[in-house]
Amino acid sequence: METKITTLERPKLNNPVMVEGLPGIGNVGRVAAGYLIDQTKAVKFAELHSSHFLPFVLVHDNSEVALLKNEFYYIKGKKKGVRDIIILIGDAQSLDQVGHYEIAEKILDFVEGFGCKEIYTLGGLGTGQLETQKPKVFGAVSSQKLKKKLDGYGVDFSVASKVGTIVGASGLLVGLGKLRGMDGVCLMGETAGFPIVTDPKSAESVLKVLMKILGLNIDLEALDERVKEMETFINKIESLQRKAVEEMSKGIQKEGKDDLRYIG
Amino acid sequence: METKITTLERPKLNNPVMVEGLPGIGNVGRVAAGYLIDQTKAVKFAELHSSHFLPFVLVHDNSEVALLKNEFYYIKGKKKGVRDIIILIGDAQSLDQVGHYEIAEKILDFVEGFGCKEIYTLGGLGTGQLETQKPKVFGAVSSQKLKKKLDGYGVDFSVASKVGTIVGASGLLVGLGKLRGMDGVCLMGETAGFPIVTDPKSAESVLKVLMKILGLNIDLEALDERVKEMETFINKIESLQRKAVEEMSKGIQKEGKDDLRYIG
Amino acid sequence: METKITTLERPKLNNPVMVEGLPGIGNVGRVAAGYLIDQTKAVKFAELHSSHFLPFVLVHDNSEVALLKNEFYYIKGKKKGVRDIIILIGDAQSLDQVGHYEIAEKILDFVEGFGCKEIYTLGGLGTGQLETQKPKVFGAVSSQKLKKKLDGYGVDFSVASKVGTIVGASGLLVGLGKLRGMDGVCLMGETAGFPIVTDPKSAESVLKVLMKILGLNIDLEALDERVKEMETFINKIESLQRKAVEEMSKGIQKEGKDDLRYIG
Amino acid sequence: METKITTLERPKLNNPVMVEGLPGIGNVGRVAAGYLIDQTKAVKFAELHSSHFLPFVLVHDNSEVALLKNEFYYIKGKKKGVRDIIILIGDAQSLDQVGHYEIAEKILDFVEGFGCKEIYTLGGLGTGQLETQKPKVFGAVSSQKLKKKLDGYGVDFSVASKVGTIVGASGLLVGLGKLRGMDGVCLMGETAGFPIVTDPKSAESVLKVLMKILGLNIDLEALDERVKEMETFINKIESLQRKAVEEMSKGIQKEGKDDLRYIG
Repeated sequence: METKITTLERPKLNNPVMVEGLPGIGNVGRVAAGYLIDQTKAVKFAELHSSHFLPFVLVHDNSEVALLKNEFYYIKGKKKGVRDIIILIGDAQSLDQVGHYEIAEKILDFVEGFGCKEIYTLGGLGTGQLETQKPKVFGAVSSQKLKKKLDGYGVDFSVASKVGTIVGASGLLVGLGKLRGMDGVCLMGETAGFPIVTDPKSAESVLKVLMKILGLNIDLEALDERVKEMETFINKIESLQRKAVEEMSKGIQKEGKDDLRYIG
Repeated sequence: METKITTLERPKLNNPVMVEGLPGIGNVGRVAAGYLIDQTKAVKFAELHSSHFLPFVLVHDNSEVALLKNEFYYIKGKKKGVRDIIILIGDAQSLDQVGHYEIAEKILDFVEGFGCKEIYTLGGLGTGQLETQKPKVFGAVSSQKLKKKLDGYGVDFSVASKVGTIVGASGLLVGLGKLRGMDGVCLMGETAGFPIVTDPKSAESVLKVLMKILGLNIDLEALDERVKEMETFINKIESLQRKAVEEMSKGIQKEGKDDLRYIG
Repeated sequence: METKITTLERPKLNNPVMVEGLPGIGNVGRVAAGYLIDQTKAVKFAELHSSHFLPFVLVHDNSEVALLKNEFYYIKGKKKGVRDIIILIGDAQSLDQVGHYEIAEKILDFVEGFGCKEIYTLGGLGTGQLETQKPKVFGAVSSQKLKKKLDGYGVDFSVASKVGTIVGASGLLVGLGKLRGMDGVCLMGETAGFPIVTDPKSAESVLKVLMKILGLNIDLEALDERVKEMETFINKIESLQRKAVEEMSKGIQKEGKDDLRYIG
Repeated sequence: METKITTLERPKLNNPVMVEGLPGIGNVGRVAAGYLIDQTKAVKFAELHSSHFLPFVLVHDNSEVALLKNEFYYIKGKKKGVRDIIILIGDAQSLDQVGHYEIAEKILDFVEGFGCKEIYTLGGLGTGQLETQKPKVFGAVSSQKLKKKLDGYGVDFSVASKVGTIVGASGLLVGLGKLRGMDGVCLMGETAGFPIVTDPKSAESVLKVLMKILGLNIDLEALDERVKEMETFINKIESLQRKAVEEMSKGIQKEGKDDLRYIG
């Protein structure tokens, strides 16, 4: 298959903006996107599968298996000034560089087909320090005009001095989108940066900024509670992926104890 | 070649079910499928080769070389209520994620061509505990209706709480099949989970459940004996694969002791 | 995308020679090509992106993100005897062997389209010894006639006894170009060979030889100063790439601490 | 490019047999094939290059660069009973499994185009023991009839009990050829099996058997001397490859010492 998107519904969207939240540092983006989908009752309309994901299926509590996937949801902007939104969420990113680029290109092709010209990717920025009460939100952009547009939203633009790269989908979607003339912003919540710890506070900071930018009004009170539920699921997948990768490499690398030899 | 299936015969099959048993934990699936082929005198009708298998050939006792392969057998259901069956067995799985997905898709394409809409994959579920006398059989399914169908066959559906993923062909065939609307069940025998030890007791438990589901009547008395024969062959391949992977990486990683340098 | 070249302008070039300087040992080639572009006010006319580069974007000081890329510049030879030049510079090379060959082939296809039949690749030759005041310039060629052509330019042709291979783009462009009947020279400045230390003295030596060969007259006085500026940027990318690769592998290899297991 | 064969001449060959000797354990095959080419004044007629070889060029003593390659030579059988022969020799094998299969398939496609239906691959069988004065020659075959054909040539067919696999081109050419109905024999000289030590005695044993089979009459007296010359070249390539792989991985894995961080 390599990478394939299956469309469940073709909604008519009006100049939609895409918001991406895939697993990553502190799972900031994944948690923010998940809560956004919950609270806005966003509708799923497509799934992405790829041969570049880990080669296994998840088993859910109801005993059903599911391939690793990314999912596309949409929200129709009801009020004036609230735009249509495509949300990209998922349980995996590519295992290899070729897949990372391939998947990002497929995503951009797909959302361009719905008229999308603007992208917000959500992630965490690992500072290596203990979490603060009010995590900052850092920003990186595809062009200077977006920096001006974000003026007044409390986004800190000193990313280059803190980190210098944005790894994976959050970075590539903005970078590859820029090549196509799409506007892109990466919003990153300050977080300790230990991949294992899901950081709801950081996700809340990112969501607050995103809500202002998109003119959304979402109740953030249930976030802590929902994060606890999501955390279990997210951590389980993360731990399973880790475990599976370990087991796979163990299976291959385990030292043989017999006296068999090979021929060159 | 990438992945290629060579057909030796094109049997006419009536709504066949596919049973898969490739190497894995405790070799439960491999042993169960091998015994099933033996006892039913199933007929081989196709072979699968892939560039994603280890790049070597096996040398058999008669000095003949053979590529690593997967094999397709069929059984024509003779009695009423006994369905035609395709059995997939083999000595290797893919070395990389892209190959895992590619091979599973090729297999599904192939068996769909024979009218197959239902898949049973066989494997082991590693519990990390010493083997029990009566290993349980765990199940995961592509949809809820299959869980109901398996009601009364003694299948334990608490997989999600025990493990959370099914790695390799056993998982991907059910997961990718589900995307195509195929029904899929993964039956996993409880086993210690050390990849090196072939577990005939666990294979027997799985076979018993599978026989009930498919209406087969197979004498399981010779299993222990046959397993001993198969075990030698299976363990040899496993050990050779391990050894070959080691040697290949040694060849590449061995530290050079001379003073040659390189240019960037 | 795999590997794609985006053309910004299609200059008419007269029998141009290509000069390549990508990151490598001592960053000799990268620094020499960068200074050449600076001093000649060369014009950028194309960019190369590839799925074989690390899957991340750089964040610049102005908060803008940028994909890793290679860039093509041109210089129109104004004086008699000074040829048109294409300069290839960039911030990355391929992560894998297939990408290395693919990218080199794309580059050769591209410059052949502008009538280029001659290539000079610039790099460092690591000797493992402390830097000397007057680093030698070593040469390797696609054919004997080029050795004669370089006679009198102070190029040392004892490369085979010092090193025996030229790794990456500097080598492959000359080797693959040779297969197409293109003339190729690799000029390598003597350097300590620790990848982390940028070596301006070595780059200066290489530039001096290249200037004589191409009949260029460039003021080398500002080199030290410019190298300091470039060094910061080059070292940052290098360090980020290293860090990112580490983090990516850590994320995948980190040991799981829970009791989850997997099924084969 | 992936894998490409460039033909220099299209000789008319009469039912030729292919003899393969690429680098491997003890370099037995490489040395035997090299000596055969020397003594029979075999003519080169094609070259194979591949993106699956290490991404570098060799620098020869005359300062010329050369891509890693495999080469095809031919010998026209002059005397009655001496068949036309294609010899495959080279300085590299694939780095990855997909390339191993791809290259072997390309080679088979190519020699089938010259009417070749029979293959002899030459290699070493590592026993882990000190070298003996008269190394045995072990054989593995594509079918039983070849075992009979080799009766009386002193080939030991107890390979399966000594090793169980033939890794790389020597194995895959016979295995993949068998799928196409080609006859194949792998002849392996007993050797200590340390990849670094070239073993001329083992190569001599293999050559003696091959000469009898093919009805060739070659003076083996100069072998020791020629091996010394070849050894230098072969060991240099081997050592360079090892060194290059090390350096490449060092470049990527080297621990960063600065405080830069990345964003997920």
